[in-house]
Amino acid sequence: MESISMMGSPKVLNESFLPNGRNYIKDTSKLTVGIIGSGDFAKSLTTRLIRCGFHVVIGSRNPKFVSEFFPHVVDVTHHEDAIAKANIIFIAIRREHYAALWDLKHLLVSKILVDVSNNMKINQYPESNAEYLASLFPDSFVVKGFNVISAWALQVGPKDASRQVYVCSNNIQARHQVIELARQLSFIPIDLGTLSSAREIENLPLQLFTLWKGPVIVAVGLATFFFIYSFIRDVIHPYVRNHQSDFYKIPIEIVNKTLPVVAITLLSLVYLSGLLAAAYQLYYGTKYKSFPSWLENWLQCRKQLGLLSFFFATVHVVYSLCLPMRRSERYLFLNAAYQQVHENIENSWNEEEVWRIEMYVSFGIMSLGLLSLLAVTSIPSVNRSLNWREFSFIQSTLGYVALLISTFHVLIYGWKRAFEEECYRFYTPPNFVLALVLPCVVILGKIILLLPCIKRKLRKIRRGLEKRQFIHDGNGSDSYPSPERITIM
Amino acid sequence: MESISMMGSPKVLNESFLPNGRNYIKDTSKLTVGIIGSGDFAKSLTTRLIRCGFHVVIGSRNPKFVSEFFPHVVDVTHHEDAIAKANIIFIAIRREHYAALWDLKHLLVSKILVDVSNNMKINQYPESNAEYLASLFPDSFVVKGFNVISAWALQVGPKDASRQVYVCSNNIQARHQVIELARQLSFIPIDLGTLSSAREIENLPLQLFTLWKGPVIVAVGLATFFFIYSFIRDVIHPYVRNHQSDFYKIPIEIVNKTLPVVAITLLSLVYLSGLLAAAYQLYYGTKYKSFPSWLENWLQCRKQLGLLSFFFATVHVVYSLCLPMRRSERYLFLNAAYQQVHENIENSWNEEEVWRIEMYVSFGIMSLGLLSLLAVTSIPSVNRSLNWREFSFIQSTLGYVALLISTFHVLIYGWKRAFEEECYRFYTPPNFVLALVLPCVVILGKIILLLPCIKRKLRKIRRGLEKRQFIHDGNGSDSYPSPERITIM
Amino acid sequence: MESISMMGSPKVLNESFLPNGRNYIKDTSKLTVGIIGSGDFAKSLTTRLIRCGFHVVIGSRNPKFVSEFFPHVVDVTHHEDAIAKANIIFIAIRREHYAALWDLKHLLVSKILVDVSNNMKINQYPESNAEYLASLFPDSFVVKGFNVISAWALQVGPKDASRQVYVCSNNIQARHQVIELARQLSFIPIDLGTLSSAREIENLPLQLFTLWKGPVIVAVGLATFFFIYSFIRDVIHPYVRNHQSDFYKIPIEIVNKTLPVVAITLLSLVYLSGLLAAAYQLYYGTKYKSFPSWLENWLQCRKQLGLLSFFFATVHVVYSLCLPMRRSERYLFLNAAYQQVHENIENSWNEEEVWRIEMYVSFGIMSLGLLSLLAVTSIPSVNRSLNWREFSFIQSTLGYVALLISTFHVLIYGWKRAFEEECYRFYTPPNFVLALVLPCVVILGKIILLLPCIKRKLRKIRRGLEKRQFIHDGNGSDSYPSPERITIM
Repeated sequence: MESISMMGSPKVLNESFLPNGRNYIKDTSKLTVGIIGSGDFAKSLTTRLIRCGFHVVIGSRNPKFVSEFFPHVVDVTHHEDAIAKANIIFIAIRREHYAALWDLKHLLVSKILVDVSNNMKINQYPESNAEYLASLFPDSFVVKGFNVISAWALQVGPKDASRQVYVCSNNIQARHQVIELARQLSFIPIDLGTLSSAREIENLPLQLFTLWKGPVIVAVGLATFFFIYSFIRDVIHPYVRNHQSDFYKIPIEIVNKTLPVVAITLLSLVYLSGLLAAAYQLYYGTKYKSFPSWLENWLQCRKQLGLLSFFFATVHVVYSLCLPMRRSERYLFLNAAYQQVHENIENSWNEEEVWRIEMYVSFGIMSLGLLSLLAVTSIPSVNRSLNWREFSFIQSTLGYVALLISTFHVLIYGWKRAFEEECYRFYTPPNFVLALVLPCVVILGKIILLLPCIKRKLRKIRRGLEKRQFIHDGNGSDSYPSPERITIM
Repeated sequence: MESISMMGSPKVLNESFLPNGRNYIKDTSKLTVGIIGSGDFAKSLTTRLIRCGFHVVIGSRNPKFVSEFFPHVVDVTHHEDAIAKANIIFIAIRREHYAALWDLKHLLVSKILVDVSNNMKINQYPESNAEYLASLFPDSFVVKGFNVISAWALQVGPKDASRQVYVCSNNIQARHQVIELARQLSFIPIDLGTLSSAREIENLPLQLFTLWKGPVIVAVGLATFFFIYSFIRDVIHPYVRNHQSDFYKIPIEIVNKTLPVVAITLLSLVYLSGLLAAAYQLYYGTKYKSFPSWLENWLQCRKQLGLLSFFFATVHVVYSLCLPMRRSERYLFLNAAYQQVHENIENSWNEEEVWRIEMYVSFGIMSLGLLSLLAVTSIPSVNRSLNWREFSFIQSTLGYVALLISTFHVLIYGWKRAFEEECYRFYTPPNFVLALVLPCVVILGKIILLLPCIKRKLRKIRRGLEKRQFIHDGNGSDSYPSPERITIM
Repeated sequence: MESISMMGSPKVLNESFLPNGRNYIKDTSKLTVGIIGSGDFAKSLTTRLIRCGFHVVIGSRNPKFVSEFFPHVVDVTHHEDAIAKANIIFIAIRREHYAALWDLKHLLVSKILVDVSNNMKINQYPESNAEYLASLFPDSFVVKGFNVISAWALQVGPKDASRQVYVCSNNIQARHQVIELARQLSFIPIDLGTLSSAREIENLPLQLFTLWKGPVIVAVGLATFFFIYSFIRDVIHPYVRNHQSDFYKIPIEIVNKTLPVVAITLLSLVYLSGLLAAAYQLYYGTKYKSFPSWLENWLQCRKQLGLLSFFFATVHVVYSLCLPMRRSERYLFLNAAYQQVHENIENSWNEEEVWRIEMYVSFGIMSLGLLSLLAVTSIPSVNRSLNWREFSFIQSTLGYVALLISTFHVLIYGWKRAFEEECYRFYTPPNFVLALVLPCVVILGKIILLLPCIKRKLRKIRRGLEKRQFIHDGNGSDSYPSPERITIM
């Protein structure tokens, strides 16, 4: 492990907390932080550092010109001077200009260089910017950090912007100094270990809903398929058969036949991944064998699948509630009234139909209520206020109950129509039959896992009690989640 | 106060921040942390410690076998060696095995032992695990902590899992060292003082909605009662009297008569507790006399009562919106149209009925809107962004307005029917009469508290100005919440 | 910079983390913290300090009497003694009593005085309390802080109350000591720099929805105007013309005509401010010229405008969904059925009307869905889990799509009626025509900004590439938000 010389600055960050009374009283000059570069980020960082009591030295090629843009308390000077005066130096220039610092290599020895750069694309270069910087200056201590902080968050202060700063470095002392500096600037530093995490940190601000991509593609795919399927069955079929023009159904009725199928399929997919993981563990008899990558990815985006399912279910509810508002409904109704009067039917009551719809609506509201609870506990700050048992109860137990009730909702909607020939237009089964396939598979799978013999075996595996393991294993691991059980939704 | 010898390790945690330039440059070897045990928690903790730059020594009975499961940089050795090499030692074995460490007692003197254990049940043992460990090893410094962190959160890092670590110990230095260690592992340590908090910390991961239990029991009890009550009045009564079969009303109409009564009763209960607390303070003339425990508990679960009230109100809205979607509604409507045609009534308009429903719906939406605001400000992160005045305005002022408007909503629903004899089926009052009792009591109570004389007296008491108090009392205590006013919902 | 003598206490806060093995082992007595004052805040602070291992000395005029109210471990004594014993002294008395400490001035030299006071009104005094205290005791180190923490949060501990403590001071060492103290009491300290921030910190607990005031006034103003406008057109007009009494429309129909106009106008205002900012930057050719204050304020409350827009839109949806539930709807419907039968119209179907409403409802649900996404990402903890690209995508891209779809929603609602003379009652245009003005302006403005030539110019300005700037500018500033683009909703 290399040492860090303090020649640039005789002070360290939290000198003020130190017990050595004598030094303490005398050493009251501020710590100096250097910044190479004079762009927006450099300006904002300077503002923040000065506010928190640091002395800032800006290194620039053209100090005279640049100094106009900075507060007068800032020392704007040539690169060489800036580097000499500070121990921690922020490299706030683009990666392409790193090589331009090559001539100053001898000055940068044993200095802490903070790489704050971002790229334009994910994995733009073969190596991360920080690792590239470290390869250029092997005798400096390169720390990656602060790149996720916007210039705006630096200026305005930490009150409402995101405050987490991810830091990594191969040198522990350098890393800890930057972590402490981040803390003194009122950010929340998060230590991500060695510089090999730099790529991950540099990709962070470039990610665009990484975990959402898969689930959204699945949802859009399912929605497209079921929309076309319903369109063919409910609009094309009557048009072809009876020349009946039901095209007005496209914007609402067809969409509202698509949404619930997608919602229940996505909800089933959430729990199907857990079942497959359990099957995998049962098959191999261990929890230490890692899952295949497709299953790993699937398990990781369960929360996103669940939230999309909730979104589709909610939109389905809104669409359903809007049905009676439509003009078409009104006309059909008035025509029905006309019909009833003309056919002189005093009471058109159909007890079976009445019960079907009352039960159907009732189960629908119940599953919506449960899904809402699942969605609310996905809000990060609500989530954080739950302990593992509570989270598990809501996401696993209530989640399965929601799936069960939604399945009943669909079953009651279908009623006996699954067995009526006329519902198989163009020889295709009705939507609700397709909607039932996955939920039934998942519920069946869950029932099998709950069989006492299998349940016992699975619990054994998840406690880590493999055959050959005999050492006394610590800490009631049953109360800890195994990786495959967390974030069930 | 006892001292902590550093013989196990000459380094302390944040050595890198220290000003003593000379030592600083030389002392760059990593801090060593010991772990007794080799289970899941030990494995995950090791991963995290290594990632954050610590050296880890695992103490095991069977080092050769166990070492396979750990990264090769980890030093897996016998208990004795592990203890000798580290100053902070995590005890990651079950409580039952604590006594097995008895033989190593002499080695553990002046070491920091971190008890990370959890139990299977709340208050499983007469004393907490940490206190038990401290009684076994009185010459060590036992710190409780890290038990609320899951093995998964340790492995994956702090990005999305809960990050709070509760720590307590009788030795302040030991506690602070473990707090600093937690901070370096990127957790947010929370200091809960002496080891007497260990029981509380051990119970944390075992709690299952502790504060929710009471409110949920009350809500379920009320719901059951009012469901049966409505069932008897609206289904049994017409069946007994006229042999009219209205059983189809059970899934939706009866439920929808139950929900709003429960919602408004729960909302009244939120504010009733505050009124009782005020009455108690007025009666005893002081705010320093603690409330009886039932009132204390009631006050503490106001937020839960309020959220349940919101939940019931929302489900009531969804049920109400679904009413026109039902087949039964359709049939009754068609029959009404048939009737109107047959009776040759050109215009069935009833101005009073029209106004009643327009006002009823209007007040309903208004109170839902206000309740939504109350619910949104209960999301922890939204809550945190409000200061006390804003929180108080929403929860107290808007909350009472919501209660008032809901009461109007019910009053308009009832209209003149409270005075019609036929509504007293089986001599029971209609639902809405029962629903009005508590809200009216609360509103009356609040009006009394707002009378100038009583308001003045209460404010005096809450500012802590008791008769015998004459010292000048600091800090504008009126701008601080008294305990009985916080989290009104 | 002045020095801080440690005569009051030979220890500093985090002595326990320090590497100097020898001192470390011996120095185990607790740090002493002094409190002047014996009110509620003093009591709660004492509880918390003791719990976290500090020794507390209370300074009081009447120690004998006051000591009854404090735990026996607390040293309640005269002001002089308390000040002599501690280095950090909390001044927990009202501002009016600060002058009473004048006699003790010589004792307070080089002590850290923590001003925790609050005022009753915003900007009550010409200078902040802390600055006043600093002017009285120029030889002490005054630190402002802890005033945002309630006595309740101090007592109960940091588990659910707000944990942020804002700290400022002109003396960096003193500030850092208080920051470290706050951290050890498990609060999250936020460093706001020099004592000039004291006014801001003192105003924090007194603010009542500062950023909400403007948007709420605009929303209420718009709502009032459009309510009266609709009332005149839809109730007064038919009454004057045909003596038709439509007063029943006031509570629901008129309100429901007002809400959507306000909602879409507020949403347009969110994006209009951004367009004006862009126009301003294009006009002056730089991003470094600050906006006029009205635009700055407008830009800052975009989130509030957006959330209010969402609130109005949601209430509009609930009102619309309630329309079929109303008795008036029922009567009109039955009368229509009667009419149809009497006029012997078998089929009243009107294809154009059907399509209009289906499309209208469909676009409405879509824009509600998008607005919900915008609203959910405004929850602080959800917001924090998004990076800048994701936030920008949702708030800017999806926001404009939502505005576009809402505009279609209104256009389809209007259909051809904008061109029918009878819709211009009292020569006023229908609501939806007024509702379309601002959205159309905004969409047009956005299209202009998206023209390649203007887009390029704007991007150049926002990257900070002014003509005269030639230095290589750091750090890919394009990936950072310019101040005018953040929190678009």
